[in-house]
Amino acid sequence: MLALYHYEPSANSAKPMICLREKGLDFVSHYIDLHVFQQHSPEYVKVNPNGQVPALVHDGRVITESTVINEYLEDVFPQVPLRPADPHERAEMRIWSKFVDEYYCPSLSLIAWHHMIQGVVKDLSREEFDKYLARIPLHEQREKWRLAATKSFPKEQLDEAVRKLRFSMQRHEERLGKWTWLAGGTYSLADVNTYSMTAAMPFFFAEFVNEKDTPRTMDWLRRMENRPGVQAALAMARKPRRNPDARNHNPDLNRKTA
Amino acid sequence: MLALYHYEPSANSAKPMICLREKGLDFVSHYIDLHVFQQHSPEYVKVNPNGQVPALVHDGRVITESTVINEYLEDVFPQVPLRPADPHERAEMRIWSKFVDEYYCPSLSLIAWHHMIQGVVKDLSREEFDKYLARIPLHEQREKWRLAATKSFPKEQLDEAVRKLRFSMQRHEERLGKWTWLAGGTYSLADVNTYSMTAAMPFFFAEFVNEKDTPRTMDWLRRMENRPGVQAALAMARKPRRNPDARNHNPDLNRKTA
Repeated sequence: MLALYHYEPSANSAKPMICLREKGLDFVSHYIDLHVFQQHSPEYVKVNPNGQVPALVHDGRVITESTVINEYLEDVFPQVPLRPADPHERAEMRIWSKFVDEYYCPSLSLIAWHHMIQGVVKDLSREEFDKYLARIPLHEQREKWRLAATKSFPKEQLDEAVRKLRFSMQRHEERLGKWTWLAGGTYSLADVNTYSMTAAMPFFFAEFVNEKDTPRTMDWLRRMENRPGVQAALAMARKPRRNPDARNHNPDLNRKTA
Repeated sequence: MLALYHYEPSANSAKPMICLREKGLDFVSHYIDLHVFQQHSPEYVKVNPNGQVPALVHDGRVITESTVINEYLEDVFPQVPLRPADPHERAEMRIWSKFVDEYYCPSLSLIAWHHMIQGVVKDLSREEFDKYLARIPLHEQREKWRLAATKSFPKEQLDEAVRKLRFSMQRHEERLGKWTWLAGGTYSLADVNTYSMTAAMPFFFAEFVNEKDTPRTMDWLRRMENRPGVQAALAMARKPRRNPDARNHNPDLNRKTA
């Protein structure tokens, strides 16, 4: 039996949700609400001691880290393959997924936290917040929450994240200039692992992710959104999604990060 | 035909060198001397546009990123397997390799740069150094070189790296408490990808990596060094290696990072 602990079909949670749906695999869905810190609850920390989503449970064993979960699903359920057959293309899939994990996603995550965390914690008293903070297992996560919730990140750190996002989008666009999909001619985990990040970009950064500057990326987003597996994962949303038509029309968010 | 562009059998270069030797695969060795900045030379940047070692060339196609290279070697040459057959153990191999890439290795790398880069650049004039700096392809690498060579890293960044290394060694030791090897009962790429990092630890951090505090890690190091594949990779060293018997006897280095 498969079970997935996940938040909305966004950020890292979306990666295995799309992979499972693309493969047509049934799974028990456990919704973990990050807005009320369920990922740090004693119950969930028994599943993933790092207190992070997503986590997959298969036949009673836990697998963590969204990129690793998707490789695991490939190893165990290869019937609908999302790893290219060509080993060189498979290496490109891993090189790109690694770049997303180490460079692109952390930069986007910093900006997203900057915009959202103060809203998440605004109704909590100092005592309540400190109580939530104390149970966060990973030191780095605890410090990130503390900083985001109280005084936010230093301007130079935010500027550096935006610079890295510009560079990430250059690489994204370059790849789609060489190939149909992000790792070659085959739709693969490289695409699955990137969708939720890039879907957010035209909302946050319409000034450099738009039809004129990144036409291939915008086309790729539409192709992704036409895939039944992606649609099925997005249909699991509990909270209202942004209307894709609103892309390029979110000047407030852009100004805040400029 | 296989060719590997690499530095000494240390840090990231060691990972595919050990993997190739464990698998008994012949390869053409291209030594790239990081001490004279060959990794940023126009010739090498044609091989890897990021200007980093190692890079594998197989049948005329380039594969970069040491962790990805080792998965590629598994995909193409599975005869001597270094990925566990059990998919859960294979996931543990990837979770740990990811932790090494994202957390453990960057922390160790910062400390190593802090100790070594000023020595590397001390005989260069400012003009020569600026010329080398200008041709470094990746922005982040250029900034890291500039900082390391001129005023080094801020104390709080070095302290944070040491804190992360302590945490990394806790996790290392915990894993070896649960299992024989770093990802389970099977010797795997998790071990191959970690050896060169952990081999450096008792030299730099004898105060917390030693027979008393991390006995399983010290035992694992000896088991690694007994493996013919590891020995064959280490035998490719051009510059003299530290004598393993000198572990726990390097107070100067330790004091500098304390």
